[in-house]
Amino acid sequence: MSICHEQLEVRTNGKGLYEITDEVQAKIDKCGVRNGTVTAFVQHTSCSIVIMENADPTARRDLEEFFNRLVPEDADYFTHGSEGSDDMPSHIRMALTRTSETVPIADGKMRLGTWQGIFIFEHRRAPHRRKIFITIIGE
Amino acid sequence: MSICHEQLEVRTNGKGLYEITDEVQAKIDKCGVRNGTVTAFVQHTSCSIVIMENADPTARRDLEEFFNRLVPEDADYFTHGSEGSDDMPSHIRMALTRTSETVPIADGKMRLGTWQGIFIFEHRRAPHRRKIFITIIGE
Amino acid sequence: MSICHEQLEVRTNGKGLYEITDEVQAKIDKCGVRNGTVTAFVQHTSCSIVIMENADPTARRDLEEFFNRLVPEDADYFTHGSEGSDDMPSHIRMALTRTSETVPIADGKMRLGTWQGIFIFEHRRAPHRRKIFITIIGE
Repeated sequence: MSICHEQLEVRTNGKGLYEITDEVQAKIDKCGVRNGTVTAFVQHTSCSIVIMENADPTARRDLEEFFNRLVPEDADYFTHGSEGSDDMPSHIRMALTRTSETVPIADGKMRLGTWQGIFIFEHRRAPHRRKIFITIIGE
Repeated sequence: MSICHEQLEVRTNGKGLYEITDEVQAKIDKCGVRNGTVTAFVQHTSCSIVIMENADPTARRDLEEFFNRLVPEDADYFTHGSEGSDDMPSHIRMALTRTSETVPIADGKMRLGTWQGIFIFEHRRAPHRRKIFITIIGE
Repeated sequence: MSICHEQLEVRTNGKGLYEITDEVQAKIDKCGVRNGTVTAFVQHTSCSIVIMENADPTARRDLEEFFNRLVPEDADYFTHGSEGSDDMPSHIRMALTRTSETVPIADGKMRLGTWQGIFIFEHRRAPHRRKIFITIIGE
């Protein structure tokens, strides 16, 4: 059994989904683990990591629009907002989704379903550099 | 330390929760790991895996009804829908819940609380066969 | 590679977020694992575990208020409610957030981002003792 730590940095350019499936698989290839799990953990509280449909971009657009309506930027009861109107909504959107995803690895490959991809779900409007800490455990 | 990979297939018959707690425990028994973790990962983007109250079926019915109202099938801004009106809502419901659950194993048993069960949360109306990839890590 | 199981008990006193970051790190220190992952798993279906912004308490207050509005206590379609009006909403709030969080450990420390803390998200009004099962895997 062995453990590999890897780090990814992803540049985002506004709200929405950014696929990182290939980048995560590349870290597994580099680590050399054949069977185990990979945990991708986003080190931020204003973006998420989610597994989503990766074939049709309209699915990502609709998802973003759903979250925009579910968590409005102008809720009159928000008191936390020193970083702008998309600040508090970003924390709520993160709480509603995920900070990490754990994916099985078998024969060196992530066992994602046919339509599954791993995405950073950016909740801020301004460009950001997002850090993902990747831990691979296996043999 | 050892790793076991197992696969489950669950037939669903419309929206709602389908318990798989016993099936996951059976895979742990077969693997023989006494202490570690089990990760159950659903290989789809239109159903989820969640840990929920497993005693009273009304709790599951109310949960399903809440999600039906939160994510309506007839939202006029949806553009993704080639598979029907429950297609895009299924991806949103998945993003709002989980693709995997990781549960501790001690003395050969999952350490679920008294009222916790593991469920497939089906978001599609038509019958489906759902694949769950199970990874057990421990000793 | 080794595995440590630890248990935490947290007293909550009404709805809202209760930080447990230091308590989880203390269990890692006690276990002595330097590299791996920690999974904190809450053994209940009426509270959650989430990673959230830990600097500004207004962010937690707004999050609580958002969930109060998203999941009202008086929904007329709820049928599960033997334990009171905050019973069914607590299960829904749990399904919308998380039962466990997995965090990477490197050089003996959790690799949380600058503003990330681990919290119990209590969904019930009455005081409760909440049990968290902690599994540390690594070397």
